[in-house]
Amino acid sequence: MNRPFIAVPLGDPAGIGPEIVVKAVSSTEITDMARCVVVGDYNVIENAVKITNTQIKLNIIEKPEDYKDGYLNIIAINNIDFTKLRIGEVSAMCGKAAYEYIEKSIKLAMEKQVAAVATPPINKESLKAANIPYIGHTEIFGALTNTADPLTIFEVHGLRIFFLTRHVSLRKACDLITKKRIEDYVKRCVKVLEKLGVSQGTMAIAGLNPHSGEHGLFGDEEVTEIEPAIKTLKAAGYKVEGPIGADSVFHLALQGRYNSVLSLYHDQGHIAAKTLDFERTISITGGMPILRTSVDHGTAMDIAGSGKASDVSMKEAIKVAVKYCKAYL
Amino acid sequence: MNRPFIAVPLGDPAGIGPEIVVKAVSSTEITDMARCVVVGDYNVIENAVKITNTQIKLNIIEKPEDYKDGYLNIIAINNIDFTKLRIGEVSAMCGKAAYEYIEKSIKLAMEKQVAAVATPPINKESLKAANIPYIGHTEIFGALTNTADPLTIFEVHGLRIFFLTRHVSLRKACDLITKKRIEDYVKRCVKVLEKLGVSQGTMAIAGLNPHSGEHGLFGDEEVTEIEPAIKTLKAAGYKVEGPIGADSVFHLALQGRYNSVLSLYHDQGHIAAKTLDFERTISITGGMPILRTSVDHGTAMDIAGSGKASDVSMKEAIKVAVKYCKAYL
Repeated sequence: MNRPFIAVPLGDPAGIGPEIVVKAVSSTEITDMARCVVVGDYNVIENAVKITNTQIKLNIIEKPEDYKDGYLNIIAINNIDFTKLRIGEVSAMCGKAAYEYIEKSIKLAMEKQVAAVATPPINKESLKAANIPYIGHTEIFGALTNTADPLTIFEVHGLRIFFLTRHVSLRKACDLITKKRIEDYVKRCVKVLEKLGVSQGTMAIAGLNPHSGEHGLFGDEEVTEIEPAIKTLKAAGYKVEGPIGADSVFHLALQGRYNSVLSLYHDQGHIAAKTLDFERTISITGGMPILRTSVDHGTAMDIAGSGKASDVSMKEAIKVAVKYCKAYL
Repeated sequence: MNRPFIAVPLGDPAGIGPEIVVKAVSSTEITDMARCVVVGDYNVIENAVKITNTQIKLNIIEKPEDYKDGYLNIIAINNIDFTKLRIGEVSAMCGKAAYEYIEKSIKLAMEKQVAAVATPPINKESLKAANIPYIGHTEIFGALTNTADPLTIFEVHGLRIFFLTRHVSLRKACDLITKKRIEDYVKRCVKVLEKLGVSQGTMAIAGLNPHSGEHGLFGDEEVTEIEPAIKTLKAAGYKVEGPIGADSVFHLALQGRYNSVLSLYHDQGHIAAKTLDFERTISITGGMPILRTSVDHGTAMDIAGSGKASDVSMKEAIKVAVKYCKAYL
């Protein structure tokens, strides 16, 4: 297969996005596997090349198929007044700019000019200052691809993690663990896996309580909700197993026993992924007509402009995009 | 310093304990740093040497100081009728035997003949079958060292994890997160750290809710209990920080930012340690007059007798014992 085209919006121009994008897309590790098209402001990109001391020439293109090897290929959206740019600071100008790079990247993916979008961090405060009516990436992608409810997956070292619940209190998460919700969510996860090209293997469902509650000894959600959901799903032909104690399920999946893990609350999956490898924890947005992968760190305003930011996550996000994009073409 | 004496009870004779003990204590990795004294049945040990094809001669000794280099040194407690031993099966004979090895090991440590005890797995069902009035290792160590409330710590890759709550449901754990309990527990943890020789650095306290609740946006335990506890502790001179989002606190501690992490519920700390490195997650029992370290896996009855069991955890438990035992001598 030809190396796929991947759109890489520049992120917030005042954050570390431009630096890590420039470094990542210029590395042979990435150019060997993908043709990245950076969507962003020309001057900001040129400055990031300087800051990071990257040895690459810039090439402005109109569309991805004009891509030239050996260059940093740019679809330019010049929306930054460079004399007013304050690296490390939140601003409406940067929030608006970051949004426009994403908007264009999504358009390229919807038109199948690129196989996926891999995103660096944006800044929620900058978005807000620019009156962008979305709080973050996922909401923007949902709205612009007409997807009611995009589904977040983490991938780290080949381990795929789904989240039954996310930004709710831990007590509320306990309340949300119901047979019905588990059944519905597993069905959605399986569809998303299929779309990513993962049709083999078994999904593990984590337990909620220590040792999955030891048959109701401490906590009964396993007995009253999780086990019945698994039973129903199995009867309907779904390959799921569980509940499996949360202290071993991620380890077992890493060993290849499961194709994915459904974590029941935000930190259950986050602790596993980010303790294992903070920089290589990549967020995938599934359930949309296009594929999006992303770093899961912030704009690191405190070190932006210094050239110090690591591009490990950005490279990993592009690699994961390459890994899964085939099924989207 | 001389290599310390470490007592290693054999564990349940029907489980993988004898195999991993024999392999671990015979490895140069361990003999280079410790003088291990195995406490167990001679025939069982001899059989484990055969099963694991370990090239070592046995040496029966009366007391640790009789230790001879180049041998597997045994304080023999011959309490197994070898003709009746069924490897892989739960039995009262093995439960009683395992208990007696621990009892003797604790005695050696209490008399300061050894610097620590490093334990392989025992089987709770076997203990029960033998009518031993303790459900597991920690309870035995607590009772025989006259410690009302031993304190469990995990160590993995130098990361130390404490547990505010353990074998209770997740909902109950939420209820138990109170200012008072955090304050009391942190004070105990700091004492335990000092006993282990760790007097530098700051303890991190994990958040309970996603992103520590984002100032009460989802979940308020951080605002009502955790932050006030930290404030009071700091005012009293304790070096603590937090609450720190559970998805980053373990990563930060691994990078050296904190000397330990207080996790608030069982799986919070367990997921972190065991996903990072299942085999190298070691349990330390603190708060006692003697030091005990342990593997945190089971007797693996299904593979016992095959020689397949990995001794990585057992070696790691001995290494951690060596690391911390100085302060106990």
